[in-house]
Amino acid sequence: MHEEQRQRAHDYLKARGIAQALFASPASVTWLTGFAPPVQLGPNPFAGGPPLVWYAGGEWTLIVLDSHAAAAAAGGIPAVSYLGYTIEAPIAGADQLLAALRSTVGNIVGRVGVEERALPAYLQAALPAGAELVSFDGALAPLRVIKTAEELAKLRANFALTDVGHAAARPAIRPGQREIDVWTAIHSAIQRAAGRRVPLGNDCTVGARAHSGGWPLDVVIQPGDSFVVDLSTILDGYWSDSCGTYYAGEPSQRQAAMHRTAAAALELAISLVKPGAVSGEIDRRVRQFIVDAGYPVYFHHTGHGVGVTGHEEPRIVPYNDMPLAPGMVVLLEPGIYFPGKTAVRLEDAVLVTDTGAEVLTKHDKSLP
Amino acid sequence: MHEEQRQRAHDYLKARGIAQALFASPASVTWLTGFAPPVQLGPNPFAGGPPLVWYAGGEWTLIVLDSHAAAAAAGGIPAVSYLGYTIEAPIAGADQLLAALRSTVGNIVGRVGVEERALPAYLQAALPAGAELVSFDGALAPLRVIKTAEELAKLRANFALTDVGHAAARPAIRPGQREIDVWTAIHSAIQRAAGRRVPLGNDCTVGARAHSGGWPLDVVIQPGDSFVVDLSTILDGYWSDSCGTYYAGEPSQRQAAMHRTAAAALELAISLVKPGAVSGEIDRRVRQFIVDAGYPVYFHHTGHGVGVTGHEEPRIVPYNDMPLAPGMVVLLEPGIYFPGKTAVRLEDAVLVTDTGAEVLTKHDKSLP
Repeated sequence: MHEEQRQRAHDYLKARGIAQALFASPASVTWLTGFAPPVQLGPNPFAGGPPLVWYAGGEWTLIVLDSHAAAAAAGGIPAVSYLGYTIEAPIAGADQLLAALRSTVGNIVGRVGVEERALPAYLQAALPAGAELVSFDGALAPLRVIKTAEELAKLRANFALTDVGHAAARPAIRPGQREIDVWTAIHSAIQRAAGRRVPLGNDCTVGARAHSGGWPLDVVIQPGDSFVVDLSTILDGYWSDSCGTYYAGEPSQRQAAMHRTAAAALELAISLVKPGAVSGEIDRRVRQFIVDAGYPVYFHHTGHGVGVTGHEEPRIVPYNDMPLAPGMVVLLEPGIYFPGKTAVRLEDAVLVTDTGAEVLTKHDKSLP
Repeated sequence: MHEEQRQRAHDYLKARGIAQALFASPASVTWLTGFAPPVQLGPNPFAGGPPLVWYAGGEWTLIVLDSHAAAAAAGGIPAVSYLGYTIEAPIAGADQLLAALRSTVGNIVGRVGVEERALPAYLQAALPAGAELVSFDGALAPLRVIKTAEELAKLRANFALTDVGHAAARPAIRPGQREIDVWTAIHSAIQRAAGRRVPLGNDCTVGARAHSGGWPLDVVIQPGDSFVVDLSTILDGYWSDSCGTYYAGEPSQRQAAMHRTAAAALELAISLVKPGAVSGEIDRRVRQFIVDAGYPVYFHHTGHGVGVTGHEEPRIVPYNDMPLAPGMVVLLEPGIYFPGKTAVRLEDAVLVTDTGAEVLTKHDKSLP
């Protein structure tokens, strides 16, 4: 699993003359190995820190908590595990992880790339005195922009889950129901379709709250309300993202006009996606389309890349001169907002192909 | 909010001659301020690291991502926020957090307590050269064992949510349903009762999987199966925990006998809770009860404390000589396991009172 990712990283490290590296960010660990520990409850109380990946002399080692050893072994690289929970002694995951790291790293010298924004300070301090530490945060991010075939398969399975979520949202949005009720309908449909627990974000907000987005609350849907549903699932460490806007009853003429404009803006955005298209130029054209239609321009990005994080390159934002290339996966999400009143946002995911864009999200974004 | 916690920490720091400290663990940040950022999707992609609490000269400052500033302000101490997301420039949360930390800390000298197991290495490296760093991980844990009145209110609200979850689980456990279907029934009931999103663990496993526990999968319930439901919700950063065992149809004589023994063991455990009782002695007595009933002894703790983490002192385990004291909150969870075949576990939460124990969990643990 993820051999191509490790080959890319190996080539990159070799070219930079870095024979050793320690990766600690969840994004790097998942991208390099396919291993993605559960996140839904926060840090594991028995772990001494995040899972680590050690690279030396072209070889890779994953260092994980013992209860993650079986899942980590699926990554296809050697995994070292350390003791977390025991009833025989006080919990000492940090001491155990420290010992596992020291024994894995050994008495190395020379340059060592380190993700020091994710590595706990006590682990960095434990690296041998002969090691010359090189800040390495973000180094892998450019290598992640073009997705591998294995990653595309994961992303497709993941976008299918947000499609399931949107199909559950539409009939659940009725006057008298609350945001949290709609959310549980979406969440349940996705978990049942996946056959296991899958983390779920993003926005599930109604009416005056629709413009700002956010997690669902105890807010009751009123007749005629607009309702923005923006969903990201995280499947095996890979993110999806897609958005729809729905209505509690028949949308008004104004709502329908906004919705049609957002749909046309999304259609325009998709039509602009092809190899060589410049991210910032797509952003400019889609914003201008909204302005030309007589609406205020949206406050957020026109889109962004996705993978082992929910927001990465290519960012479709004003300043970005990054050209699109085949194998990138891009979210596009124009919206129209009247703060405190109403909002519409529609979002699709596309794969940049050799000639244009393949739409990966299949949810129904039509007016009722 | 959480004034009493900060007073305890202040007194402790003063007694140790530590005039400055930097807290980075989620447990410390929540305990000191009441602020608990969402965890369900993993680390925020726009954050430079975890929220931080800086203590100097008796004053406290919370450092958070800008999108958390409003929630952080509820903590009642000054909050410094830093820029995360922007469409005007590349995402640079780490640089922003670094600058916020430097500006908050200033040019201090002398001893500085540091949670170096939770603090990212790049932030520790940015502390002034005149600072003498003192490892401070776990220092607050002993101060957290006795709960404040404010914490008890949070924990009571939280245990009420797991009660809701158990009430939803019992009717959902039917032959032909899957573990994940039971889980969505539990999860939905809890979110609807809370009126907002609440993280939820732990075990939701049937039949041969019941002994090992784990998250729900696509496993179908068979007639006569035992089903273990162990629930932790995290409400405003505080954990709950409680367990029930249910049956797909009428339990067999063997299942009923195991269940009654586990219930009696739990009753015994609760009866042993009082100020001065020694944790390890409670553990020994409850294990012996299971052995005397002719069953194999369980592999896990008899119980554990709970608060801003799901597993803390007092651990009710063999080696622990910690005496119980009023204001502690303890989980008690004896079980009987036949690996690969069946299992039963029943768990209640108790508050240690001046004279004994008050049971905080109210879920129905009776046989059908």
